[in-house]
Amino acid sequence: MTILVNGLVTTTLPVADRGLQYGDGLFETIALRNGEPLLWERHLQRLTGGCRRLGLPPPDAQLLRQELDQIAGTETRAVAKIILTRGGSGRGYRADPGAAATRIVQRLAWPAHSENIAQHGALVCWCAMRLARQPRLAGLKHLNRLEQVQARAEWQDEYAEGLMRDSDGLVIEGTKTNLFLVQADGTLVTPDLSQSGVAGVMRAQILDSTAALGLVCRVEPVTVGTLESAQELFLTNSLIGLWPIRQLEARQYVVGPVSKKIQAALQAAGCLA
Amino acid sequence: MTILVNGLVTTTLPVADRGLQYGDGLFETIALRNGEPLLWERHLQRLTGGCRRLGLPPPDAQLLRQELDQIAGTETRAVAKIILTRGGSGRGYRADPGAAATRIVQRLAWPAHSENIAQHGALVCWCAMRLARQPRLAGLKHLNRLEQVQARAEWQDEYAEGLMRDSDGLVIEGTKTNLFLVQADGTLVTPDLSQSGVAGVMRAQILDSTAALGLVCRVEPVTVGTLESAQELFLTNSLIGLWPIRQLEARQYVVGPVSKKIQAALQAAGCLA
Repeated sequence: MTILVNGLVTTTLPVADRGLQYGDGLFETIALRNGEPLLWERHLQRLTGGCRRLGLPPPDAQLLRQELDQIAGTETRAVAKIILTRGGSGRGYRADPGAAATRIVQRLAWPAHSENIAQHGALVCWCAMRLARQPRLAGLKHLNRLEQVQARAEWQDEYAEGLMRDSDGLVIEGTKTNLFLVQADGTLVTPDLSQSGVAGVMRAQILDSTAALGLVCRVEPVTVGTLESAQELFLTNSLIGLWPIRQLEARQYVVGPVSKKIQAALQAAGCLA
Repeated sequence: MTILVNGLVTTTLPVADRGLQYGDGLFETIALRNGEPLLWERHLQRLTGGCRRLGLPPPDAQLLRQELDQIAGTETRAVAKIILTRGGSGRGYRADPGAAATRIVQRLAWPAHSENIAQHGALVCWCAMRLARQPRLAGLKHLNRLEQVQARAEWQDEYAEGLMRDSDGLVIEGTKTNLFLVQADGTLVTPDLSQSGVAGVMRAQILDSTAALGLVCRVEPVTVGTLESAQELFLTNSLIGLWPIRQLEARQYVVGPVSKKIQAALQAAGCLA
């Protein structure tokens, strides 16, 4: 698959890049449908906001979109991944203020997600690995992802996803997905991500569209107890769209009307690949 | 400077490497004196222990040492940096169990440390950036270093180092150094690193050699209060050796007899470049 690094076709990056040396950068994973990046404005907005928080130069939106179009291809479904790093610099944590950022834009094959899961629901486990509480990095899709890597190593193919709690025991998200709960009164809840977690683009899309669907969605800390008393649970990200959870360890959940309603709205809005 | 990636001379790494994608790997920074790696057995031991904890294949010690010798050169002082990553794999946090690890061995220029600091002491600040508490990654010299990068961005040249606290307010370490305190009764204390921080090789060397110097050293949680009541403070890492702290923000410390005694012992044992 094609990779552009600072606009040039290549498959490699300098070893000195701070993306490798320290994970000093951000990324976006974007669904491509017939070469069209879905939720592009939201991805760009998150990336730009992340740059602001990490003190990285903001991306040139027009250039980034041009490069995305250049590698996108025309397959029905594919994945674009953008990585921005603080670029090269000498040894040491201190960044060279004169160093140019590194911009990587690549296309990857669409993953073998089962359509079945979106319709009939996912089997999900609890991860033993906890997320640390770090407000300065929380919400960002940065390149320091050892917690997710270690969590994902806890199972093979027996589950579609694993849920992660933080070090205080609060429920935060899946290893690669955000989590929503539907409570008995129909209210939606998604965990507060001010201390840990990644604020997903599909999560933002849902948060911004629930009111129009006549739904209320609250962002707040979620305990295991709150989760266990939920009527419906579902997972979201840019590639899978929305996966209802049909089983969390031994506990069964229905693929319910609120999950289906939101899934249909995402489909109708052209947000699903 | 020379770089070997899996034994081949190059300056680049595949973009698909998990070291870049997720910071999924470990590193060692080693002082070279006349081409000889100092504290080599300790570096190897930490790297091997880190691989065990992260589930990475352990390095081939003989091969690694061969490659180190190949790039070491003969300068009076230089730096070797070893990076081990989980290698390449498709998109997603799940590692390919069949993927070979990536081994990067490189030589870098000796940094312009002032000799003056080792003799007369360092001027040190407090960092606002806190370290998250994550026992599963604590102590490891892994590639997820955004906390240190953000902390190091808080000052320019006005301080030699910044001290970091964890999210509970406990004092942990400098951005690139470990911290020791000398208490009024002459006892040494260095912060417990079971929740955050990097367990440095020079720290281990000191912990293992204090008894022979007639000193007692305890590893325990350190509060700001404990630190402020210390008689002497010093910082350690593989490159700087031992830096006494002469001033922490507005508070002055003496470059005292215990710091000097340990520094002299490290010098005599051939641990300082």
